[in-house]
Amino acid sequence: MIIVGERINTSRKQINEAVTQRNAEFIKNEAVKQSESGANYIDINAGTFVSTELECSEWLIKTVQEVVDKPLCLDSPNPDALSHGLGLCKQKPMINSISNEPGRYEKIIPLIKKFDTDIVALCIGENGMPNTAEERINVGTQLIKRLLSDGVEENKIFVDPLIVPLGTDFKQGLYVIQTLQSLRQQFKNIHFICGLSNISFGLPNRKLINQQFLVTTMCAGLDAVILDPLDKKIMANLYTAETILGKDEYCMNYINAFREGKLDFEK
Amino acid sequence: MIIVGERINTSRKQINEAVTQRNAEFIKNEAVKQSESGANYIDINAGTFVSTELECSEWLIKTVQEVVDKPLCLDSPNPDALSHGLGLCKQKPMINSISNEPGRYEKIIPLIKKFDTDIVALCIGENGMPNTAEERINVGTQLIKRLLSDGVEENKIFVDPLIVPLGTDFKQGLYVIQTLQSLRQQFKNIHFICGLSNISFGLPNRKLINQQFLVTTMCAGLDAVILDPLDKKIMANLYTAETILGKDEYCMNYINAFREGKLDFEK
Repeated sequence: MIIVGERINTSRKQINEAVTQRNAEFIKNEAVKQSESGANYIDINAGTFVSTELECSEWLIKTVQEVVDKPLCLDSPNPDALSHGLGLCKQKPMINSISNEPGRYEKIIPLIKKFDTDIVALCIGENGMPNTAEERINVGTQLIKRLLSDGVEENKIFVDPLIVPLGTDFKQGLYVIQTLQSLRQQFKNIHFICGLSNISFGLPNRKLINQQFLVTTMCAGLDAVILDPLDKKIMANLYTAETILGKDEYCMNYINAFREGKLDFEK
Repeated sequence: MIIVGERINTSRKQINEAVTQRNAEFIKNEAVKQSESGANYIDINAGTFVSTELECSEWLIKTVQEVVDKPLCLDSPNPDALSHGLGLCKQKPMINSISNEPGRYEKIIPLIKKFDTDIVALCIGENGMPNTAEERINVGTQLIKRLLSDGVEENKIFVDPLIVPLGTDFKQGLYVIQTLQSLRQQFKNIHFICGLSNISFGLPNRKLINQQFLVTTMCAGLDAVILDPLDKKIMANLYTAETILGKDEYCMNYINAFREGKLDFEK
């Protein structure tokens, strides 16, 4: 699995305070801990600082890159903030996100090309948020084909099927799984990614749902995920699912995770 | 999910002692607790008492039926023990198991027909235990078609893809998932069942693997399972997976399970 560490997001209170106070040590520690816990990308999201997003994300990017070599994931709805941030990245980053909404696609595609980035492609089209599996599959297929025809390489595309809470519509988990199964069959070399926590919004014991949602989506073809790599339980579920799905030769990663105490809480 | 409660098995030390001592209260309690915890069938397995299996299973069947109305699952490699037990069942039971091994099929099919039972159909054929997904799919397809041509109804057939430990071959989980996905696509009204614990044999933190294996196999089409319904964690995972897979209208079962404290340990 490719892991995007989601912790450096100013919608989290502690991160918001650290950015406001320019507390570099706090941010550096968040970056290092995520990297050590298995993050392949470090997400940078300063979206809550609407009017000062450019300077806040610039400070975050520079601060994180002082201590971590991993590529960043620049996570913003604002193309100007993305463009500014991309110029500061030492490693080729990931952008979150492009979609097939009119206007959005045209603004983001030049950035992907110029900076040779990975790209999170949301299954949102002209008609806005998708509802059923069919709508997601249609929008996802169109978006993938458009990106490919614009010269983006398959292994740079991370399709996000879009997670809507089960509490809103109890079929939404099934729709995501069906979407992944269908698109995975069509596109063998594309990545599939999502965040987990939206699925459980409004329900009790959210972590239990998030854990099992990770496992079911992995079974359906997910190979990348946006999560908190310091959450031991979710990471233990991730290792275990990889082992069950035949991706862990001789079960050595699982056994090593056990030896390193990463599965201990289950005792 | 259709749940077969697996606790009344004489390979478990406490059950073995209770049978030896004809401790009816202990067995009744085991039956009632499993029924109350959601078991749809109560498994009866006295296979370790090789020479006295008939009388031991007779005592177990009668004892359990004094307190529980649920159908039984008669679990034995011995056709004579099955035949004897079937005559004692008040509800139409399940038999575990038939296979396509020469001799086995012919001995079991008359019992299924005479007693109108549900049947666990193991993916074992003339060449013995299957290894790959392909072997399982071939044997499973042959066995299902043979049962159907012998007049067994689709909804009475519970196909078991056969679980081999990941520690023996790290692809075995994947093979089971691929088998379920393929057979489920061909046979919409057949049930698919397995026991869980074999998958984790020889590995550390077995419960974690068993839990995630349940979730992945449910995602691939499993709709019945042999497990310990008193294991709160595995049951919580089962409820959660059903909710994620769109089988829990308005998430009411999940919310009720939470209210009844069935998900509490995750706090």
